[in-house]
Amino acid sequence: MAIKTLLDVEEAIQERMMTAAMLNTLVTRLSPPPIPAVQAWGKSYDGSQGSLIDLSQAVPGYPAHEKMLQWLGEAASSLAYTNYGPIEGETILREAYAAHVSEIYDAKISADNIHITSGCNQAFVCASMVAASAGHTILVTDPFYFNHETTLAMLGIKTGKVNCTASEGFVPTIDAIQMAMTPDVRALALVTPNNPTGAIYPADRLQVIFDFCRDAGIWLILDETYRDFLPDGAGAPHGLFATADWQENLIELYSFSKSFCIPGHRLGAIVAGGAVVEQIAKIMDNLQICPPRAPQAALARALPALTEWRAGNRLEIEVRAKALRDVMAELDGWALESIGAYFAFVRHPFDGMASEMVAEQLAKRAGILAIPGEYFGERQTPFLRFAFANADAQTIRELRGRLAGFGL
Amino acid sequence: MAIKTLLDVEEAIQERMMTAAMLNTLVTRLSPPPIPAVQAWGKSYDGSQGSLIDLSQAVPGYPAHEKMLQWLGEAASSLAYTNYGPIEGETILREAYAAHVSEIYDAKISADNIHITSGCNQAFVCASMVAASAGHTILVTDPFYFNHETTLAMLGIKTGKVNCTASEGFVPTIDAIQMAMTPDVRALALVTPNNPTGAIYPADRLQVIFDFCRDAGIWLILDETYRDFLPDGAGAPHGLFATADWQENLIELYSFSKSFCIPGHRLGAIVAGGAVVEQIAKIMDNLQICPPRAPQAALARALPALTEWRAGNRLEIEVRAKALRDVMAELDGWALESIGAYFAFVRHPFDGMASEMVAEQLAKRAGILAIPGEYFGERQTPFLRFAFANADAQTIRELRGRLAGFGL
Ligand SMILES: Cc1ncc(COP(=O)(O)O)c(C=O)c1O
Ligand SMILES: Cc1ncc(COP(=O)(O)O)c(C=O)c1O
Repeated sequence: MAIKTLLDVEEAIQERMMTAAMLNTLVTRLSPPPIPAVQAWGKSYDGSQGSLIDLSQAVPGYPAHEKMLQWLGEAASSLAYTNYGPIEGETILREAYAAHVSEIYDAKISADNIHITSGCNQAFVCASMVAASAGHTILVTDPFYFNHETTLAMLGIKTGKVNCTASEGFVPTIDAIQMAMTPDVRALALVTPNNPTGAIYPADRLQVIFDFCRDAGIWLILDETYRDFLPDGAGAPHGLFATADWQENLIELYSFSKSFCIPGHRLGAIVAGGAVVEQIAKIMDNLQICPPRAPQAALARALPALTEWRAGNRLEIEVRAKALRDVMAELDGWALESIGAYFAFVRHPFDGMASEMVAEQLAKRAGILAIPGEYFGERQTPFLRFAFANADAQTIRELRGRLAGFGL
Repeated sequence: MAIKTLLDVEEAIQERMMTAAMLNTLVTRLSPPPIPAVQAWGKSYDGSQGSLIDLSQAVPGYPAHEKMLQWLGEAASSLAYTNYGPIEGETILREAYAAHVSEIYDAKISADNIHITSGCNQAFVCASMVAASAGHTILVTDPFYFNHETTLAMLGIKTGKVNCTASEGFVPTIDAIQMAMTPDVRALALVTPNNPTGAIYPADRLQVIFDFCRDAGIWLILDETYRDFLPDGAGAPHGLFATADWQENLIELYSFSKSFCIPGHRLGAIVAGGAVVEQIAKIMDNLQICPPRAPQAALARALPALTEWRAGNRLEIEVRAKALRDVMAELDGWALESIGAYFAFVRHPFDGMASEMVAEQLAKRAGILAIPGEYFGERQTPFLRFAFANADAQTIRELRGRLAGFGL
């Protein structure tokens, strides 16, 4: 319509409001993705304290192996991987990963138990969707990995919260799980080694939790994205894959992003019963037909070949953890509440102050990027998450001066 | 428990049944992905009629350009793309694609209007989720693209069917859309050029449909995966992007899979209002954090550089379409009901017989892989879909003898 008078304007606005299509409120209600928001604070840092120390997104602070890059390039430039591939993933990668997982857990996992995904976030989407639909409940811990919470929210799946406390080392107890149970719970989603707290759930605790899930007839969805950064010699993360009929209650998730330093290539994996993998293939066919093929081919070569390099990285990350422990021990007011395979959960000294505000100031004035505790659950306002594995030991030691001199 | 007697066995079974976790029935109810099923029939073909002619999955029957492969390899072997990238996609690709789309539609589309995805199926998932949640309805045509239907089903979004008939050239009419409308409809999803029928929706029909959606306050989700295969000189596919406030009702989808012969690298794109792109970024952050980066960088180079090569492919596909027209004109009983940019919808001569059965026999005995009409809607049992663009003209001419000699 032509706009001539104020009345016309009003009419035009109303007409537009009447006809604009509606957005899904489950999506509009989600807060914007947290990582870009935190990184934006870093852009206002004036550099006065030295270079920005980015402990926000969990990205390995060392580059991918040069062989990895070579193999990625070879596969990507090959005609062999241009066409659509198998929904469940390349057979060579499923086989290589099955062998790898079988070794880690001393269990019999076959290629049929593997579904490759475009990263572990997507693996979680698949696991949630295979277990539950809108209206059901999936339990997560509090603090939780934020994408788990937002994924469930956007799918209309309710989240129940399993309260994890500093006094328990942020490891969930059966009591806490029991308290969160309701009749519509379909799954319990756990992350170990944990994001955000770093907590490493002991194998025996995982076993009783698994038994609890089995008794309750619910899925245990276990996100082990940071498995490769467990302390050297820690042994198998758990014995669940050796439990009879584990397929009936366990869906395990993993990411190739962190261990191989290739998040930009987007690969993750699910281990589940063959029947579950078949159902997940239906979901994945809809979500994206197949995972990107060329990086899968490269990874099938890297998985056995780069074992030593990965072991070296594991040691390097232990060095970084020790550096952070040393720094924190010398700081007044700041407390290292939990530290593990990749992350530390740090109590800031500004009692009662929102950690979002602390993190923003820390970024802008001290040049330290950390994620506010609230992003992992409303109750987490005393804490900040440091993805310490991103920075080398020398950089971590710089935190001491910056934090000691930081006031609000 | 140790199993000793029959009673123990029964108890063990019961115990297991009681504790096995439940699967989401929205997923278990979906039929298995159709393409692998059809391809399995091909494996039982004995070769007696010559090589298998695969007209099932829509995959270009010519290879990717060698420059494309080179650029893919360069980007994949570079450290620059190993880390996480922007959720919405690489800026260079968003800019290149915005320029491309602006040119095609003679419209002003900016990088803020673009969201890159891992293929167009994922783009549809995002579009559906941004428009609707479980319990709402999205309209699709009948026949539909099967992944649209299964995507909605698994999300608990109801589908309404807009009946498209052979007599209307399988182009939806406003009457048919009107008939399918219910108060909970959030969007109408259309595919043009159409999969499975090949029908090219005329620009003026798209305009009235868009106006209808605007009046009804619903989204038009327009999947233009096969846009580059419109007949040479056909002009802009439609003028919707030039409509004022198109952002309030239009979400347009595209796939780089077919045009650049790189489905294995998984890239697609969404054009939408900036506010919609922001909401989709929340969904994509959960679904996979970011699309695979290296192929995006390669594509940003290819998009302007391979224009001529793509024009050549368009002509080649017209040659193939003509070959199929010639073949079908000479066959008794078989009828070419519709043919367009990539697909033909063919009426088989076996009146009343399920097309699934026809397709199975055609695969096993005549070595022709086609998708049964039923896979695109219950009512489509008289038809088979031929993805004729997969095969060169000489191969297509071979269909004549095979189909003429085929009986049931
Ligand atoms: C616990 C957890 N799960 C999943 C992911 C996602 O990893 P990917 O890059 O494989 O999608 C992350 C990444 O930070 C994570 O911390
Ligand atoms: C209409 C339609 N939309 C989307 C897709 C998916 O394409 P992509 O490979 O980009 O996911 C296809 C593929 O066949 C299609 O036919």
